[in-house]
Amino acid sequence: MSLPVDDASTAAVSGEWQRWLEQQRKWVDAAISTHLNELKSHPQPHSRLPAAVEYSLTQGGKRLRPVLVLESCRVCGGPSERALPAAIAVECVHTFSLIHDDLPALDDDELRRGRPTNHKVFGEAMALLAGDWLLAHAFAVLSADGIDGQLAADWVRMLSAGALGMVVGQGADIAGEGRPADAELVEFIHLHKTARLLETCCRMGARAADAPAETLELLGRFGRCLGQAFQVVDDLLDRTGSTARLGKRAGKDADVSKQTYPAVYGVDESRARARQLVESAVQALEPLGPRAERLHSLAQFVIMRDR
Amino acid sequence: MSLPVDDASTAAVSGEWQRWLEQQRKWVDAAISTHLNELKSHPQPHSRLPAAVEYSLTQGGKRLRPVLVLESCRVCGGPSERALPAAIAVECVHTFSLIHDDLPALDDDELRRGRPTNHKVFGEAMALLAGDWLLAHAFAVLSADGIDGQLAADWVRMLSAGALGMVVGQGADIAGEGRPADAELVEFIHLHKTARLLETCCRMGARAADAPAETLELLGRFGRCLGQAFQVVDDLLDRTGSTARLGKRAGKDADVSKQTYPAVYGVDESRARARQLVESAVQALEPLGPRAERLHSLAQFVIMRDR
Repeated sequence: MSLPVDDASTAAVSGEWQRWLEQQRKWVDAAISTHLNELKSHPQPHSRLPAAVEYSLTQGGKRLRPVLVLESCRVCGGPSERALPAAIAVECVHTFSLIHDDLPALDDDELRRGRPTNHKVFGEAMALLAGDWLLAHAFAVLSADGIDGQLAADWVRMLSAGALGMVVGQGADIAGEGRPADAELVEFIHLHKTARLLETCCRMGARAADAPAETLELLGRFGRCLGQAFQVVDDLLDRTGSTARLGKRAGKDADVSKQTYPAVYGVDESRARARQLVESAVQALEPLGPRAERLHSLAQFVIMRDR
Repeated sequence: MSLPVDDASTAAVSGEWQRWLEQQRKWVDAAISTHLNELKSHPQPHSRLPAAVEYSLTQGGKRLRPVLVLESCRVCGGPSERALPAAIAVECVHTFSLIHDDLPALDDDELRRGRPTNHKVFGEAMALLAGDWLLAHAFAVLSADGIDGQLAADWVRMLSAGALGMVVGQGADIAGEGRPADAELVEFIHLHKTARLLETCCRMGARAADAPAETLELLGRFGRCLGQAFQVVDDLLDRTGSTARLGKRAGKDADVSKQTYPAVYGVDESRARARQLVESAVQALEPLGPRAERLHSLAQFVIMRDR
């Protein structure tokens, strides 16, 4: 399939950058594996709950959110390691949202990242509980022993705002099904369902580096615009991509009359708006100078992705 | 119906104590109403999510958990007001667990506190999201502006441990359905599903008062034993109570072969064990002297309750 927004921008994302991204993902994967192994010292009799958690948390994905956390910390001069609890916590929250959104009561999806969704493997009860566990666990990770109290409190405030935004956005998304396409409602859904958590990632990373409030604002704006662009691309991929490539069911938004960018603006105008949003994201990075180059490439990557 | 455990202990709970409890509940109810009104300044278009949250959070209940938080703070010499965010947060987590547990994928209940369960009124999608929202919101409440960073971090660590315990306990409860009655498994379920959150309430209240670690341990043990006794009584009420009085379906544990105290020990032995657990709870209070008198009465109340 063709890229949803911008074939030409491939050039902006160098091979070196792609190797860096791969290495970051491996670091995140390893950190999550280590973390899960530590948890296994608390056995849970007769329950597949830990297996259900592990199934969804370890099945790859882009790891975009933890990478954003770690890189936002590095851009602000902090050691990425300091942001690692935040990176793991946002991935827990993201995974929680995927498991719950896939449930029959919400989007009723059978395929995620090319594999059966959590409830198809473990049943609805365990999938529901695995999501709940991941959401609660995210806050346990942020407040673990050894993390400075004020840092933990700030992270928790940021992450709870991001998680609440997602839930509110998902509520509006479900409630908007079957209604006439509504530009204002689509903005609300995109901003809450996707952009708030990406904004949260950048803020948490910057906070880990003790960045000043203005830098948190800049990186927050970057994450928000990036999140909005990401969701426009998601809407476009659902419209124009294939189930095989996406690893999840394509074409379902139109089937249930979801509020999407293509439904409001059409495909071409949506592509133009995704580009504009990435431009706004990149502009927010300008005051940070060349240190922010990788985040710049990450923004390009978001609109050239094909799954 | 007769009281499940101990008719004679009624005398231990004075009219004065009952008036105090009523006043505490009113205080909690008012605080939750004020809190919900503040939230209404952030409208959510086209979504019944806020209504679903409000429905379950305001429909009364015993308010046992927030009262435990507030009283544990007072017993440790702190002003109860300081523990109010913790009291609201634990009630959010408790309400989250009720909404999710009632869903068709879990206990599939239609009645709660004498009213239709959340998903019967708002549909499964909004009920699921309302639970998610309440869990995330609890952590937003604990980390709000104006709360000391170290206090917030400690509260978050305690509450996430309590919430995780509940989810793990519910997982074991679901997984244990239909298996032969198993004493060890019942202990695990009771400890996690119910006792951990009551332990958390006492710890959070004591922490609000800057109580020393030993006092947190004592009150934690009180809450844990109280929670275990509470769940034994719950099991007994399900076996011996009526749907009309309980405000929720009676007799369902046996219908799905749940792991319960009566299933393992029979009704009489379960009553004896509930009394022993309350005795253990009360013993934990001894070093705190007469200040802990109301908590003492609360423990009596838990085994004489009939719903």
